[in-house]
Formats: sequence, C-alpha cells, structure tokens
Amino acid sequence: MEKTNVAIVGMGTVGSGVARLLLDHGDRTSRHAGRTLWLKKAVVRDLAKPRDVELPDGVVTDSIADVINDPEIAVVAQLIGGLEPARTIMLDLMEAGKDIVTANKALLAQHGPELFTRARELGRTIAFEASVAGGIPIIANISQCLSANQILSLEGILNGTSNFIVSQMDEKGASYDDVLKKAQDLGYAEADPTMDVDGTDAAQKLAILAHLAFGATVDWSDIPREGIDGLSSLDLAYSRKLGYRIKLLAVANLAEDGLELSVGPTLVKCGTPLAEVRDAFNAIRVIGDAVGPVFYHGLGAGQMPTASAVTADIIDTAVGRTRLTFETLEYFSVDQPPRVKLRDVDTLQGRYYFRLTVANHPGTLAAITKALAEDSISIASVIQHEPENADVEGQDAADETVPLVVMTHAASEGAARSATEKIESLPCVTGPVVRLRVKQ
Amino acid sequence: MEKTNVAIVGMGTVGSGVARLLLDHGDRTSRHAGRTLWLKKAVVRDLAKPRDVELPDGVVTDSIADVINDPEIAVVAQLIGGLEPARTIMLDLMEAGKDIVTANKALLAQHGPELFTRARELGRTIAFEASVAGGIPIIANISQCLSANQILSLEGILNGTSNFIVSQMDEKGASYDDVLKKAQDLGYAEADPTMDVDGTDAAQKLAILAHLAFGATVDWSDIPREGIDGLSSLDLAYSRKLGYRIKLLAVANLAEDGLELSVGPTLVKCGTPLAEVRDAFNAIRVIGDAVGPVFYHGLGAGQMPTASAVTADIIDTAVGRTRLTFETLEYFSVDQPPRVKLRDVDTLQGRYYFRLTVANHPGTLAAITKALAEDSISIASVIQHEPENADVEGQDAADETVPLVVMTHAASEGAARSATEKIESLPCVTGPVVRLRVKQ
Repeated sequence: MEKTNVAIVGMGTVGSGVARLLLDHGDRTSRHAGRTLWLKKAVVRDLAKPRDVELPDGVVTDSIADVINDPEIAVVAQLIGGLEPARTIMLDLMEAGKDIVTANKALLAQHGPELFTRARELGRTIAFEASVAGGIPIIANISQCLSANQILSLEGILNGTSNFIVSQMDEKGASYDDVLKKAQDLGYAEADPTMDVDGTDAAQKLAILAHLAFGATVDWSDIPREGIDGLSSLDLAYSRKLGYRIKLLAVANLAEDGLELSVGPTLVKCGTPLAEVRDAFNAIRVIGDAVGPVFYHGLGAGQMPTASAVTADIIDTAVGRTRLTFETLEYFSVDQPPRVKLRDVDTLQGRYYFRLTVANHPGTLAAITKALAEDSISIASVIQHEPENADVEGQDAADETVPLVVMTHAASEGAARSATEKIESLPCVTGPVVRLRVKQ
Repeated sequence: MEKTNVAIVGMGTVGSGVARLLLDHGDRTSRHAGRTLWLKKAVVRDLAKPRDVELPDGVVTDSIADVINDPEIAVVAQLIGGLEPARTIMLDLMEAGKDIVTANKALLAQHGPELFTRARELGRTIAFEASVAGGIPIIANISQCLSANQILSLEGILNGTSNFIVSQMDEKGASYDDVLKKAQDLGYAEADPTMDVDGTDAAQKLAILAHLAFGATVDWSDIPREGIDGLSSLDLAYSRKLGYRIKLLAVANLAEDGLELSVGPTLVKCGTPLAEVRDAFNAIRVIGDAVGPVFYHGLGAGQMPTASAVTADIIDTAVGRTRLTFETLEYFSVDQPPRVKLRDVDTLQGRYYFRLTVANHPGTLAAITKALAEDSISIASVIQHEPENADVEGQDAADETVPLVVMTHAASEGAARSATEKIESLPCVTGPVVRLRVKQ
C-alpha cells in the first residue's frame, strides 16, 4: 500500500487529537484514504511539556526544520493559532513543497488572499475544513455538496463559547460573569475570551463562509458585529417572555442589491432549530435556490470534533480531492474581483427589540412611540410592568424608573439607529438603550 | 474553457430539474466545475409528452443509442426508476465509456455489487448522492466529510412521504386514508405508495447508508422493517400523551457484537431534533467516534432538492473528485467480505410501547403484567382510562373493551416478541397487540 507522510505542527489540544486518530486508527484512515497515512513528525514548542498522546520514538521534535527539510513529508497539519509565526511557517512549509491543512480561521480571514495566491503559485493546496464550525463539515458542504446551488442565505451559530454562555445565562438565570467563569473552568472559554465573546471569532468565520458561498471578498473587521459581552440577563428574560431566545447569530443574506453580513446577539423564535441550539454546539442553516433549507448541527469546538475535520482534510489531501477542488475554485484569489458587493448597512431591513430604562411618569410612552414613528418604525408589541415597589406607601412614583421593552415591525437599520439616538436623548429615558435584532 | 458533455436519461420530474440547472445556470455550474457542463442529449420515452423545461433544438431524443453512440458524452445522469430497464441501460452506458450519476436507490440496493464491480472493471464511476435523503448530501458527508470517524450510529427519517403522512395525522388528527389522499394530491405520494409507506424505500436507503458507514453488505429485504401503513391515530394520540411523537425511523447502531439495522414506526421524545422533523422533510443524526453527534435536516424529495444532489454529482464527476473517491473506497465490491456482521434481531435491546384492547374486568392488568414479567420485561408507565360510556346506566361493564397502553423499560426484541405472543393469547385481550419501539 502506498504511504503518505504527514506532519503535525503544533501539538496543542487539536494537534494531539489528530495524532491520536492517525496513530490509533491507521486501519480506518488507510481504508478511507486508499493509502497509509504515516505520522512522521510532530513539532512542539517545548519538548519537556507533558502531552496526552504518546508519540513513537523520533516523531516529536521542537524544530520546524525537521519538517521543512524532509522531502518525504507531503502533508502538514499546521495547527498553530494566531497570525505570526503561523503565517510565516505556512509560507515556509509551502515553499518546501508541503500541502497544508489548517484550523486557523483568524489567519485565513486576515491573510487568505496572500496565502492562497502563494499556494497556487507554488502548486500547493490549503485545506481548512476545521477553521469554521469545528466538526460540522460546512466548508465541504458549501464548496462541493451544494455546488449546484446559488446559496441565498446562511445563518449560523458559529461561536461555541458564546452559545454556551448565553444558553447557561438563559437556562440557569446566571450572570454573564458567573457563566464565563464556568466556561473557563470547563475549558470552553480561553483565559482571555475577548475574541470569542466580542463577535470577532464569529465574524472571521462568517467572512470565510461568505467568500465560499457568495464570492464575497470582505475584511472580517468590516462586518458589523456585536458580541455577547454586553448582554444582560434582563434581555434574555424579556426575550423569553416574548417567545424568543437570544443567540449570537452570524448572518449572510443575498439580496438584489448585494450581500448583507452581520454578527450580533439576535432574538430567535423559540421552537425553531437555531433557537434550540444549546451549550457549546454550533449550527448553520443554509438556503440554496435548488436544495431549499439545509440545517447542520454539531460540536463547533473541542479536541476530537476539530481533529475529525483536520483528519478528513488530511485524507482528502492525500487522496487528491483537495487538489482538484483547490484548482477548480479560485478561492481567496487576489486577481478575482468579488462576485458580490456588500449592502449598505443602513438599508438592511429587520425587526428590532428595544429595552429602555424610563421614568415612571405620564407621557413617557407617548414620547418614545413618537420618536419611533418619526423614523416610520411601527410597533409590534410592548412590555411595561408596574414598578416592583409601586405599592410602597410614601414612595414618590416620579423618582422611579421602570424597564420598557418594545418589539418593532420591520424597519431599516438606518431608521433604527436614528430612532435610537432620538430615544437616548429623551429626558424620560434614564439609561442606555439596548437594541437587538430579531430574526425574521 | 474545457467542456464536459452531459446527457440525461429519463426526463421525469428530477430529470427536468437537472436540465433546468444545467441550461439556466451554466455560469454557476462552470464556475464550480472549472469547465462548461454542456447538456448534449436528453432521452425521453415519449417525444410528444409536454415537459416543464424547454430544451434547445437537437437535445431531446427518444433513442438511448444517441447517447451510447456519442463518444463526446462523458457523464450521464441516469434518472430512470425501477430495476429494469434501468439496470441494463446503466450497464450499456458504462460499456460505452460513460460515467454514471443516479438517484435510483432501489437499483443500488438490489444490484449495487454487480453495477459497481462492472464499473470498476470498465474504469467507470457511479455517483449516487441523490439516492438517499434527496437534497441532504449524506452520501458525501459519510464517505468523505466524516471519513476520520468510525460511525457509531445512524438514525434517520429517510422517507418523506411517510413523514408527511405521520406529521399530518399527528397534527391534524386526520386518518391515515385521508392524509394519504392529500399526500397524493400534493405530489408527495405516488399513485401506488406501497414502497414508501411499507418501509421498503427507507430500508433500501438504510442498506446503502449501512454499507457506506459500516461496510455492511446487507440485502435490504433482510432488514427488519415495518411501515406506517398500519399506524392508527390512537397510537399517535397516546404517544403524544406520553411525551413522544411517532416517526418512521431507520436505525443503524454499531455494537460490540455487530450491527443493528431496523426500520419502523418509533416513539421519539418530543423536543429532540428527530421528533421535530415535519412534513416531507428528511433528517439524519450521525454519531462518529471523533466528531460526536452531527445532525442533518433538509428536503428529502422533490424536483429541485433532488436535482441539486444529481447536479452536484455531475460537477464532482466532471471535476474528477468522483473518480478519486470511487477508486479509493471499494464500495459494493463483490470481492470484499463485509466489515461488520448483523446482530441477531432477538438480542436487540430497546424500550417498547404496547397498546392492547382489553376487557374491562378485574384481573386484566394483572394478567398482562404477569405475561410481561415472565419475559423479564419491566413496566415504565401505564395508561388506562375509564371507558367513555362507563357511567351509562344499565351498560354491562363486562362487555366493554378499553384500550390499555404500556411503556416498558429496556428489553430484548426476543423477549418483547415472546411477551406479545403470550399477551395476544390471553382471553382478556380482545384485539391485536400494537407494539412499537421507543427511541432511547
């Protein structure tokens, strides 16, 4: 049987998982690849650090040169995170004739065009299934399985950390800080979770998917995005009362006048599949013009789900499927103009949830509904309760503030923003306005 | 740009959909295939029959010889249903050097080994994404995307007609016959719906998936199967009371001692993703040892969803991916022994739902629980209501029959069958015993 020599660069959680699949399940990988996949080198930063996978003698090294200078190594799973030295190492590996498998979405979202163009110049390939949605094979599904379709929309829960936090806040009524701490203890959140909870990670993944599905060439940092880091459990509670859950939703919608892209906490109707995605799971709903809606749900992170995606890419690369796909689809090409333009954010249509803190005196609701009406925003529902201490004797009602929740009908983002500014400047509105999108 | 000439044999619903994608969306298919896909011939049975797609001059023909004798045609979407002449035509096309794309699961389930072996001998390929679950690309997902995994289980709603009927019976409280009629009017069910509603179609699809996922070589007719054709709305109502929905579930479960395969109406816990699959949708839950659970949901039939799968296969065949996969994976090989043996049906463990019609007199429940206990089946819950006319004066209670529903804890199929026989022979049991499996 033929043999393909493989190296892993970066033996963190995912790298160890890939090593385990290659070492412990050689029968399986060789059956699926039609050849032996032989783990020849595993590059680590610190040889002394204990690892949760036992490597055969001679495999582990702390020198990337051992991979670069070994002409027998054909495929490298490059599993170092961050931008540098990951970028330089990937370029060096390709110069040395290695095909690349990577899980590094930040690197692709930032330097995709440079890396893919260089790969094409060198006759090399880059496979990146693990860069989006962990174990869900969404890259292959969009690039190949649904290739007869014009994708019309993509809606995804793409950040497992955020979804875990929001689910736990929603189900246990816990505070953001408490749940974040729990997520860190469970290994779902990094010590510095900023990129996960502020929407960066989801925007980077959305930029990759939007490129595959729509030919959009978009800098991820241009995608309007909000994270869950400012989310209050009050909003989860009100949403639930209204029949919704809040999810950090990444959305790409194709319209006549361009592509809408956004990432943000969004109210999703209870009972719909995306609303029911719990804990660290990811999910993606794709609508194709021929296939209609297809829904994918699975583990978006974690050692073995991500290793599953990386190893499938190693198999595809060894078999030669990756090369055919890579040569056919001009992904991340600096030469190709984008096939779609981005829509002006202000024209995006959607429903909105507003939560205000208002003075409990006459005229408040009139002032707010007037501000909305001025921007032609019509109201679908309102929740305003009596203040909890309204019946306390001697309490001066005029000093009290109460929450006011308004759900609107469809309005443009521009109108919603303009109304928000007006509302925030009203004297009867005493705190910042929370505004969230509602999935239609 | 290179050109690949394509023919369609069989211009029914799906064939017309494929023609539409090729003719109307040449920009899209050529971008995804890296070459022009040119519809050169479309073979119909009756030239005079009106079609819902307009074909360019010279494309339509009623002679298969026009395809077989045209050396320029490289890929043929063979979309004739049934076993013959579909089998002979497929063999003739392959002899003539054509690669095949098909949606015919009955043909593959029956003659897969012969057809695939002949394809290999001739250096040809067969792609069959559309044969299972319509628009859901489950074949590619199991064969390629999840190739790093040992699949541990597959549970699927694979027959859209059955699911439509059961959903409508459940939601509208309608009778089987009324809903079947509606399904036929809507085009969801054939004039002769036998193969859909008796479990044959689902068993054929399960046989294909079991081969891909587990290397099982199984005659679909050996798969224990029941359809929904005997389902009473009473059982849907009782299931709902117990917190379940009934779904026609196709199951493949890998255990230490072999593979369990079955198709049958099954109680599925409300709120779980499979229970919420409505109307003509299909869904599949796959568990892989690395990736964990992955859930797929989409349209399992219909013109454009199925055409989406066929056209993706045409693209894959033109690009060359199909060849690599076909040559790597020895699917349906007559030379290879099966990698897994089937479990003895009697040893399968599961929970059961029993519905009995019993005499409303003392000792009835005691007799039934004794029969279950003799086969070591323990009871989880019981529903027995008073007869509706129990308070009618002068009514002789001893003449009445009442329904009795029993949910059991886990038991073997052998024990459940033995207990069923005992219960049916009890004098207090006046009608046939309904026994359904409960998904665990």
